[in-house]
Order: sequence, then C-alpha cells, then structure tokens
Amino acid sequence: MENQSILIYDTTLRDGTQREGLSVSVEDKVQIANRLDLLGVKFIEGGWAGANPKDGEFFRRMQEQPLSNAELVVFCSTRRAGIKAKEDPMLVPIIAAATKWITIFGKSWDLHVIEGLRTTLTENLNMIGDTIAYLKSCDRRIIYDAEHWFDGYKNNPEYALQTLKAAFNAGAEWFVLCDTNGGTLPDEVAKTTQVVYESLRLWGDGNSPQIGIHTHNDAGLAVANALSAVQHGVKMVQGTINGYGERCGNANLCTVIPNLQLKMDYDCIEPEKLFQLTEVSRQVSEIVNLAPDDHAPFVGASAFAHKGGIHVSAVQRNPLTYEHIAPESIGNNRRIVISEQAGISNVISKVETFGICLRKEDPACRQILQMTKDLEQIGYQFESAEASFELLVREALGDRPKFFTISNFHVYCSTTANRLDGAVNSQATVKVVVNGEEHLTAAEGNGPVAALDVALRKALISFYPEIANFYLTDYKVRILNSDSGTQATTRVLIEFSNGKRRWSTAGVSDNIIDASCKALGEGLEYGLLSAVRYTKA
Amino acid sequence: MENQSILIYDTTLRDGTQREGLSVSVEDKVQIANRLDLLGVKFIEGGWAGANPKDGEFFRRMQEQPLSNAELVVFCSTRRAGIKAKEDPMLVPIIAAATKWITIFGKSWDLHVIEGLRTTLTENLNMIGDTIAYLKSCDRRIIYDAEHWFDGYKNNPEYALQTLKAAFNAGAEWFVLCDTNGGTLPDEVAKTTQVVYESLRLWGDGNSPQIGIHTHNDAGLAVANALSAVQHGVKMVQGTINGYGERCGNANLCTVIPNLQLKMDYDCIEPEKLFQLTEVSRQVSEIVNLAPDDHAPFVGASAFAHKGGIHVSAVQRNPLTYEHIAPESIGNNRRIVISEQAGISNVISKVETFGICLRKEDPACRQILQMTKDLEQIGYQFESAEASFELLVREALGDRPKFFTISNFHVYCSTTANRLDGAVNSQATVKVVVNGEEHLTAAEGNGPVAALDVALRKALISFYPEIANFYLTDYKVRILNSDSGTQATTRVLIEFSNGKRRWSTAGVSDNIIDASCKALGEGLEYGLLSAVRYTKA
Repeated sequence: MENQSILIYDTTLRDGTQREGLSVSVEDKVQIANRLDLLGVKFIEGGWAGANPKDGEFFRRMQEQPLSNAELVVFCSTRRAGIKAKEDPMLVPIIAAATKWITIFGKSWDLHVIEGLRTTLTENLNMIGDTIAYLKSCDRRIIYDAEHWFDGYKNNPEYALQTLKAAFNAGAEWFVLCDTNGGTLPDEVAKTTQVVYESLRLWGDGNSPQIGIHTHNDAGLAVANALSAVQHGVKMVQGTINGYGERCGNANLCTVIPNLQLKMDYDCIEPEKLFQLTEVSRQVSEIVNLAPDDHAPFVGASAFAHKGGIHVSAVQRNPLTYEHIAPESIGNNRRIVISEQAGISNVISKVETFGICLRKEDPACRQILQMTKDLEQIGYQFESAEASFELLVREALGDRPKFFTISNFHVYCSTTANRLDGAVNSQATVKVVVNGEEHLTAAEGNGPVAALDVALRKALISFYPEIANFYLTDYKVRILNSDSGTQATTRVLIEFSNGKRRWSTAGVSDNIIDASCKALGEGLEYGLLSAVRYTKA
Repeated sequence: MENQSILIYDTTLRDGTQREGLSVSVEDKVQIANRLDLLGVKFIEGGWAGANPKDGEFFRRMQEQPLSNAELVVFCSTRRAGIKAKEDPMLVPIIAAATKWITIFGKSWDLHVIEGLRTTLTENLNMIGDTIAYLKSCDRRIIYDAEHWFDGYKNNPEYALQTLKAAFNAGAEWFVLCDTNGGTLPDEVAKTTQVVYESLRLWGDGNSPQIGIHTHNDAGLAVANALSAVQHGVKMVQGTINGYGERCGNANLCTVIPNLQLKMDYDCIEPEKLFQLTEVSRQVSEIVNLAPDDHAPFVGASAFAHKGGIHVSAVQRNPLTYEHIAPESIGNNRRIVISEQAGISNVISKVETFGICLRKEDPACRQILQMTKDLEQIGYQFESAEASFELLVREALGDRPKFFTISNFHVYCSTTANRLDGAVNSQATVKVVVNGEEHLTAAEGNGPVAALDVALRKALISFYPEIANFYLTDYKVRILNSDSGTQATTRVLIEFSNGKRRWSTAGVSDNIIDASCKALGEGLEYGLLSAVRYTKA
C-alpha cells in the first residue's frame, strides 16, 4: 500500500524573513527558491508582492527563470474594507506576480475584525469571498490561510466557521488553519482540526477536504501541533527551513519532514531526496548569514554527536542504542569524539565526489581527516567551502598543481581630508611568483579586498587568460571567538563564478585582509584547476 | 478548587552538562543550584558523584551550604553485574554525597541489557532491585529512572514492565519514564504512560502512582512529550534550563513550566515566582557562557518582538491580538522592531523606549520612517542596530549631541616579505575633531578594524575617559548586492558592551573599512550618550 502524501508548503521567503535579525536580498531569495525547488517541496511562498520593492523584483526575476518542480505562490491579505476587490490597488502587483497559485489570508477571529480591521463581521465575510472570487475570475487557484484560526474558533466558533465557509463558497481549494500567535496546545489543535474536517466534508458533499496547518513556536510546540493536525486529517504543512520566523519562529520543516516521513510513514518529498535535508538547512543558514543551530533536531551538527563513553561504545556496537534514526537518512552524520572511524568514511565519500577514489586503509585518509580537524579547530568550515576542501585533499595526495604563490601584499585605504566629502581610496600591491619568477603589481579597487583581487588578476592574467572569466559573487565574514576567548578569529567565505558554475573558498586569520587574501588566492587557484580539468575532459 | 501540582525536577547540572560545548566549574554548579532553589523547583539533580572529581566536590560544597527549599539529588546507575550492591565501590561516593534522595537509573530495554551491559535479563532485574534495596537500607529515598523506557516498552513490553516492578518491589517512590534517544512521538508517550499508570496502580493496591517523565529533543518534541505525559497521569517533569543537554537537548523547563502553569492550570512553582523565569534563563546562560537563544519560547529576547506594521498597530490596541500570553507574567517584555516592514506605529512605540514621546501627526514620524526606508534601501538594517536607529531619531529631532567628528582615516595592512613567515601588520591613523580642535592619532591592532578602533579611542580617551569601559563584543560583515547589481555594498554590524549593557550599530559603505569606521564611531558615540543619560538620571 502506498503511503499517504503530505504536501510541504515552504514559507521561508515570506514568514521566515519576519525573524528578527534576518534580512535577505532578491538574489538570496532566488537562490533559496531554487534550492527548495531541487529538494522537492510542493509550494514555495515567495512573498507579498507590493508590500516592499524587493518582493516585486523577486517575482519578476522568477518569471524569467521559472522553477522546475515546485509551485511558486504569492501571498496577500483579503481586500480592504469598503471597496471592491477588482478596484483594490493592493491586488494589482499580486496579479502581476503571474503565479498560478495565490495564498489569501483572512481574519477568523472576531476580535481581529473589530479591533484590528475595525470593520463589521459581515464586511469581513464579504472581503474573504469577494477577494477569492475576483482572483478566481483572473484564472488563479487559491489557498486560503485562516489567520488566528485556533484563537478565533475558541472565542467564537460559529463566526470562525462562517469565514471558512465564505472562502469555500468563493472557490478556495485549500483551507489552512493558522496558529498565528503560536499559543495553542496539540490536543486543542486535534479537536479543532476534526471539527473543520467534518464541516468541510459536509460542505463538499462528502469529498475529502484539503486542509493545511500553519503553526508558530511560541509555546515550543510548532512541530508537535503540525504533527497533531496531520494525524487528524490535514494534508498540507506550512513551515520554514530552520524554523525561521517572527518571535520564536515557525514550524521547522527540517524537523517536520523527517518526523512525517521516517516515523509516521507519510510521503512529503521523494525518499531519495531526503538526505539533502541537512545540506539545505546549512545552505539556507549561510545564505541568510545566520549561524546554524548545532543542536537542531535531525540536521544540527550535534544531533548525532556522542559525548559520554558508555554511549560511544554502545552506539558503535549498535547505533540503535543511542540514535533514534540513522543520521545518513537525512544527510547528517554521527560524530564520535574519541574515535575517528566515522570520520574516515565521511572523507572517503566526500572525496569520491571529486572523482578521487580512496580506500579506508590508505594513510591519506587519516591525514586528510587530521588536517580537516586541525583546520576546523582554528575556525575553518568546509561545508560552505568545498573548493578549499578539494585543494586540501589534493595537497595531501600530492596532486595540487602550483599555478602561483602569493609572496606578500600591502593594502592601503584612505579617505580624503574630510572623509564625508569623498570616496575612500583603496590600493593594494601584491607580489606573486609564477614559474619561479616574481611579479609585483598594484591596483585600486572598491574596498581593500576588491583592490587585492584586481591586483592579483593583473599579475596572473598574462599567464592564465581564463582568469578574466572568474568573478566574485559573494563575500561573507564572520568573527569567531577562539577557544581561549581572548583573541578573535575572522573567517571569510568567498564565492566565485565563471558564469557556468560556482565554487566557494574559505580563509581564516586574525586579520580580515589576510583571511580574504587566502580565500581569494584559493578561489583563483580552484578556478584554474577546473579550467584545466574541463579542457582535458 | 486547587490546581493539581506537578513537581519540577531539574537536571541542568547533570544531563544539561552533556551538551556539546558546555562546561562548568564547581563554583558555576553551586551558583546554578542556588538560583534554582530560589526559583522554587522541587528537585535539583547535582551530578553523578564519583564519575568525576568535580561532582564529588560539588556535593561536599552543598553539605556546607545546604539548599533552602529544593531537594538536592545525586544520580547513579544500578550496581555492576555480578557483585552485591553493598560491595560496589561505585555506590560509596553516592552515599557520601549525603543527600536524602538518590536517583538510580536502570535499563528497561532488553537490547541495552544484552548489547550494552552484556549481561542477562534476570541479572538486570537483580541489579535494579538490589541497588534500590541497599540504598533504602542506608535510609535514602529513591527515584527510579527507567532509561530508554519507551524504546524498551515498544520492543519488549513484558520485560520493560518487569524492570519497573523490580524497582517498585525494592521500594522506589518515583518511576520516571525516560525517552533517552528522544525519538518518541507524543501519542506513543500518551499510550505507554497510560499502561504504566494502570500497572503501578494495580501493584500499589489502587494508590495513585508517582510517575515522572524525562524527554529529549531529538525529534523536536521534548516539550510536547512531557506535556502529553502530564495529561496522562505523570506528576513529575524532568528537564533543564534552556533545554541544555546531549545532542539536541532535554525538555526545556523554561518552556514546560509556563505551558503547565499558564495554559494547563497545573502548579509547578509558586505563582509569584513565575516572573523570575526569564531572568533565570539568562543568568544560567551567562554562568555557562553560552549565548542566550533570542528565539526561545517565552523567555527569548525576540519572543514578544513585533516586526510587521500591521502586527504593531494591532498589538498596541490589544496585546491579545498577537501575544499568546502576557510577557510580564514570565518576566519578559514586548519589543517593537524597526525594519523595512515597519509603519508609523512601529516608529512611535520604538521611540517611546528611548524616552521620546511622538504623536502620529508629528511630521518627524514620517521623516524618521522615510529616513529609515531610504537607509534600508542602501543596505542598512536597524533591527540589529538599535543604537544607530536611536542616533538617527535624535538627529531628526535635533537632539543629537556632537561628542566628536571623524575627519579622516588611513589604514594600512602589510605582510612580511614572505607572508607565510610572519603575521600581518595593521596600522591606522585617525583625525578626530573634539570641541573644534583636531587630534591626529595612530595605532596598531590585530587587523585593520581593530587598529582603527584603538586609534579612535586613543584620540578620545582624554576627553571622555568612560570610553575605556566600552569594548567590542561582536562584529559581522555582509556583502549586499545593490539593486543595480553592478556594485557591491558592505554592511557591518558591531556590538559593544560596557559590562552592564550591550548596544549595536551599523555602517554601510562600498568600502568595508569605511563601513566599519561608521559603525565604530556610532558605537562610541552611543556609549557616551548613554553614559551622560545614566549620570543625569
């Protein structure tokens, strides 16, 4: 018998960005949407077009490069009180977003209608029905988000059901029960979901209703509430990657998906894609530049870390003893502090992706593992810098061609006499050695790192003309406190592209310019290495 | 009618310290125990005396300064296989710990008995019974932790119940069901707890059984599982402050307690002490030197932070609209966040927290909002830089004192002739104007930004000696692609502290050093501004 499907509706790009301290560019949003598309979620909510210029731009970009699998969804409230939906300017950018699906949220709670919207209960019902009917007439399919559903139902169940009925009558296809304030308990979710299920079945002449759940974590129960709803008939779960969201966050899809799929036997994403989950979690945290939560269920770096001695020996005899699921199933791995055994198999499988075959017995395995651990100890992180990791592996195997060496650099930034009158001037000089010969170049740039980049290219381009095709696409800096706590270390991550593919490198130093120089150098080196490889192939 | 009581059993000092990256001294443990005693939890598990010298020392210290309210508990496993309990040296320090209560954990899962302990199922039953009977004979009261209860019961229910029966027959008073691997779902917890409840009632001639619950967060359900158990007859909840614990952590008591007490009407701690919870959460995180989780339910700094404009105006009219409980009830408070999603009402209530009263009609409101949006358009982000926002507001209101102006700066970084041989040297010169006079200073630092910071302080300290107390606590950099896509903008966020409070500033420029200089300058300026304000008050 086939498992029942639960559709995953991701709202990282809309509700997730409500998290305090999280801010994304249009480019970030496009990247996240494409990554989620690859993972195989069913719906991706992109934002509220028109609410800010960024979201409008995002939907324009997505029309040029549509998603392959997922449905892109635009989000909006019901029309304003007192006007017709087709006359509400708020809906113009929503239609211009040109998505097949639109999510309309409306008020379920009488308190919000009266105190928030300051309109009548009847007008709120009209707003729901009219907005949906108008968008249906524009050939859109509608998901209806019932905001504050659980609080509204508790306060005035008859009215709350009338709002759903208004959405149903106007032609909405999905009915999403939102615990907007995040304070509902799982048994309340269960009871109320059952009522909705029965009501919708009745209205729909016995057809199985399409209900969704949208939960927040204010009581630490977002995941439990989503699972409780699924057990009572819900077929769509809304949430965000890493649980990002306003206040305490939304239901964390990196927790919801493996619970549903591995423990409760529902299908959410293709089983062979489940192992991407840890990677997606970490990539999204890098894109939004927030430190990943090491203790996150399933995908955290510590989620399968064994510290106590008893645990370690038992888990090695039988992983079941201290692991609730197999970490590989979601792309995470077991970490055992006293044994490097688990690490070696990681090295082997990682190195395979570079086309290098290593055997467990090969002394290079242990050497690479030790180098990785030593470098991670001082702040490196290779998950987001695979190009640096490949160079490290090739170094260990004696297979790293020497395109150039950076002997030294000098960087100079200065303002005009009154800094508010003019731009800052940045200059760099770099000495590189190519084929045993020294070359000293100087360059200006938009900032010290850019100046260094320009000077490096200037020195190298006559030897390696393909360098003209490489460009920086991202640059991120994080300050890490070293174990001693007295001295800060800087980690720089740089992403390059040659227009066809991207690669990332890392540099760590107590000096930001030095860390940047390391990452820049390795980025150019890796670009040259791939150019050679692709020319050969 | 009185509410039913749920006893809180804190294991921060034992299971909490299993968290990767957490390490505490004896002094830290004493401090935490005293703070929890004051909060009013019923049991405080101090550690496994004898397992390491630290825990032995802790129990000696606690004998000299006993707790006022809570019961201190020492933790230990059942005796080793094949010897008598009274001959097991492991139990000597347990008795020496001199606590009235002892928690003994034993195996419930046959797999663990055979593969972990490598003994027989019968010997495991003897180990449970003999250990408890011996400690009872030493006049101790026993809490029995049934390790891996839920997995054990799933695998072999008859045997699992036999282990509990052995503890019951030997005289244990409490029976704690442990979800050691953290993978159980709330409905499984409910069903299994009911079975235990019925069995214990039968064995105890109909007396109401004393059952506890101990959950882990590997499936993101630790809190939900604890609440589910309480709804099915459990009277003791074990957990840790901030959910610290191995892998993904234990049930977070800062979430469990307010859920039980505010939403489910149980008594856990004295109602008039509940408001201490936010303080306890933050104090414990400081003692163990881990950054607090701003997004933690109930006690996080963002738990009642409102970002979207619609939310803000509604919550001001009626807090119920977007808050599931009153933040003051657990000692937290409401915060209004400034971001591109903000409206005028955000500005007004934010500005109120600076002690500035603005009316909606005041033209400054719209001016501040416009300045905010314009600056955010070029890359500023004020939600993580409230100090910069306050300076902007004071600027708009003509109420920003001019402590100093940075006229210009020069920054120089250079490596030795061969950069791999030595450190990078960073120097900065800064010209500042104070009271109309120019002052030029130079300094070295660990990186260009540090050099700039040192030079700035050097110039200012003779005028403003309080600057010696300000220090940098965090520094973040993000490269943003401006809308044109041709030129990268750098945003720097800097956090400062004076040992008592923290503040953050932002700087944006196409040059990272210039952006850092802006954020540094505003950070020092804001520090001076608050120093003046606090002196006045």
